[in-house]
Amino acid sequence: MTAFDFGPLWATGLPAPAAKWTGFPKYNFVGGHNDPDCVPVEKLKAAAEAVLAREGRTLSTYGLASGPQGYLPLREFLVGKLKRDAGIACTTDNILVTSGSLQAIDLVNGVLLSKGDTVIVEKDNYAGSLSRLVRLGVNAIGLPLDNGGMKMDALASTLADLKSKGIRPKYIYTIPTVQNPTGTIVSEERRREMLALAEQYNVPIFEDDCYADLIWSGKRPPALYAMSKRNNVIHIGSFSKSVAPALRVGYIVAPWNAIARILAMKTDAGSGALEQMVLAEFCNAHFAEHVPALNRALRAKLETLMDALAEQFGTAAEFDDPPGGIFLWVKLPDNVDTVKLAEKALAAGVSINQGPEWSTDKTHAKSRLRLCFASPSHETIREGVAVLADVCRKEFGVPERSANVEKRAAR
Amino acid sequence: MTAFDFGPLWATGLPAPAAKWTGFPKYNFVGGHNDPDCVPVEKLKAAAEAVLAREGRTLSTYGLASGPQGYLPLREFLVGKLKRDAGIACTTDNILVTSGSLQAIDLVNGVLLSKGDTVIVEKDNYAGSLSRLVRLGVNAIGLPLDNGGMKMDALASTLADLKSKGIRPKYIYTIPTVQNPTGTIVSEERRREMLALAEQYNVPIFEDDCYADLIWSGKRPPALYAMSKRNNVIHIGSFSKSVAPALRVGYIVAPWNAIARILAMKTDAGSGALEQMVLAEFCNAHFAEHVPALNRALRAKLETLMDALAEQFGTAAEFDDPPGGIFLWVKLPDNVDTVKLAEKALAAGVSINQGPEWSTDKTHAKSRLRLCFASPSHETIREGVAVLADVCRKEFGVPERSANVEKRAAR
Repeated sequence: MTAFDFGPLWATGLPAPAAKWTGFPKYNFVGGHNDPDCVPVEKLKAAAEAVLAREGRTLSTYGLASGPQGYLPLREFLVGKLKRDAGIACTTDNILVTSGSLQAIDLVNGVLLSKGDTVIVEKDNYAGSLSRLVRLGVNAIGLPLDNGGMKMDALASTLADLKSKGIRPKYIYTIPTVQNPTGTIVSEERRREMLALAEQYNVPIFEDDCYADLIWSGKRPPALYAMSKRNNVIHIGSFSKSVAPALRVGYIVAPWNAIARILAMKTDAGSGALEQMVLAEFCNAHFAEHVPALNRALRAKLETLMDALAEQFGTAAEFDDPPGGIFLWVKLPDNVDTVKLAEKALAAGVSINQGPEWSTDKTHAKSRLRLCFASPSHETIREGVAVLADVCRKEFGVPERSANVEKRAAR
Repeated sequence: MTAFDFGPLWATGLPAPAAKWTGFPKYNFVGGHNDPDCVPVEKLKAAAEAVLAREGRTLSTYGLASGPQGYLPLREFLVGKLKRDAGIACTTDNILVTSGSLQAIDLVNGVLLSKGDTVIVEKDNYAGSLSRLVRLGVNAIGLPLDNGGMKMDALASTLADLKSKGIRPKYIYTIPTVQNPTGTIVSEERRREMLALAEQYNVPIFEDDCYADLIWSGKRPPALYAMSKRNNVIHIGSFSKSVAPALRVGYIVAPWNAIARILAMKTDAGSGALEQMVLAEFCNAHFAEHVPALNRALRAKLETLMDALAEQFGTAAEFDDPPGGIFLWVKLPDNVDTVKLAEKALAAGVSINQGPEWSTDKTHAKSRLRLCFASPSHETIREGVAVLADVCRKEFGVPERSANVEKRAAR
């Protein structure tokens, strides 16, 4: 008997079928994975033990004893953390805990976007946000960035242009604090400009702050949410970057009129309670000391990556030294096609993010790539970059061999 | 400055805004909450400690070291459990761990359903499944049940009728093993009939087995998935009912060609890892002994509920003694409108599920209600049913007062 053919039954427009997972490549520079040595295992164990002993029986109840917005002690921690770090004044009613910030993005998109809508985004951008907009049939207008983030002249002219066409964008999506993939941080002054433009054109801002804890200096500008006088900002964040990616815990901060709409769309019977409980218990005691230690480890890995790139690629690899984060956005010579490079590199055991997936401007991004540095060891970073350089040289003739051999030998 | 008005920006067709949560009512007979005394707190603590000590560092990686289908030891446990309990022969490649079985439903619907599609369901049904179909704009044809579950004559005639109209339903959705809300279990013989009809009309079956562990006798017929010769069944299950609802861990079992499609739609970067790790560790050691103990406690609460209904409502409340589960589907006299009863009861501190939300046939369900009995204590069940009877008597004149006072006094 032949197997059942689901083919004619699938909905139209599905993504391509997934391939079977066969493990990570040896040199893995993709994905928001973090440093395994920085997972606070002992403290998470102690947190799990304490919170289960105290409140374990509440696991019998959907939403614990906290209702559908998420574990109350976690929301209480967030009220304090957001005030302290980002200047946000809010209450636990303004916070909705989500299953990672990806669910937060899906929920915000779910309440605001319909096919044919227009949104404004940073040109170089998180591939997961861009692919969601494509799937929703939404027109995403990508604005250029400089080393201070989204350019305000471009925002002003785009808003004016859209207005002249009678189009009100549904939101301005920005990652203002350690932008993905560029790593830029928008200054307080530029944030004020962005808010003024958003107010002028009556457009909300969707502020994705999921990397905002990972700043070498430990200092960040206030969140757009905190600076807004109009309550027109929806803010999202995550513990994936600051504690552990596999813990799927993110959050939305928004005025209650928005939370009420978003909550009505969250029909999942709550996000994972044990993760929320353990995180709240851990964070209340240790978050403030954990994050700086994590940042020191990440900064050290970034330096290894930048050194390795300089050593292996010389001037062929251009990048800014980012003020935080877990990734580096690299420009290679114009003749390099990073789509092809990614394919060839993977065959050699090196995974990289090819530029065009991380930008609305495929031409601009053709010779760019994103390298995530938090997960691989220092040694793996050095070896992986060397393999990548070999592949790139073989395929595209850059970097030239001689200079790099000399530099390598000098170490 | 006035608050920003998101109103004109919301997508069309959103559900009504959520109200602020104000806590559970005193007598809470809604929601799939479980018995707090049955949460295996000490064993979950030990499981958390063991698995974090052994594998805690893998939390730095999305998907742990298991890839996107879920924590491998949990899928390995499921392979054994599904074989032992449900007769399912599958491999870990056939299993996708989800954030509760609600995400499983959303994913299966996501790959199969488009607006205007037709599906076949049991008439009395899980409100969450029905509301999802309504929101998707899918035509759900509800079939009557008898005390053996979905009626096969109705299935045969419906499939024939649809075929004559040129309509191929996207699936037959069934909860064959402790149906929600009726509690019925479809016999092995009737399962064979259902499979034969599904094969004859070339329609897949969507088997929702999320209550299947909760059977007083501990014995269940093989899953439709196990009995299918055509691989045309997609099976879902959950740990919400058997271990703890607030742990949001469910799963999909399907042929790889279906898993590949579903996995491509699961863009959440994995379900909560800590919950999966702790569950796998707990279940491998304790699931087989935990479930019978839980079932004994649930059966005792069901008996309290049935006794209380007999005492308070006499013959006015009709119900079958279900072979398992956490809910009772109750028929009141025809003049009772359970929509109104639910509203009045809530004002008196008693929450119930009004029938029409749990059925495609609003007239049939008008005088029916669902009572969940796993969460409230025996005392709360008795008191709550008494309050409910008072409200019902006041609003609808049933049950008559005298008989019940006598019965009550006799205790």
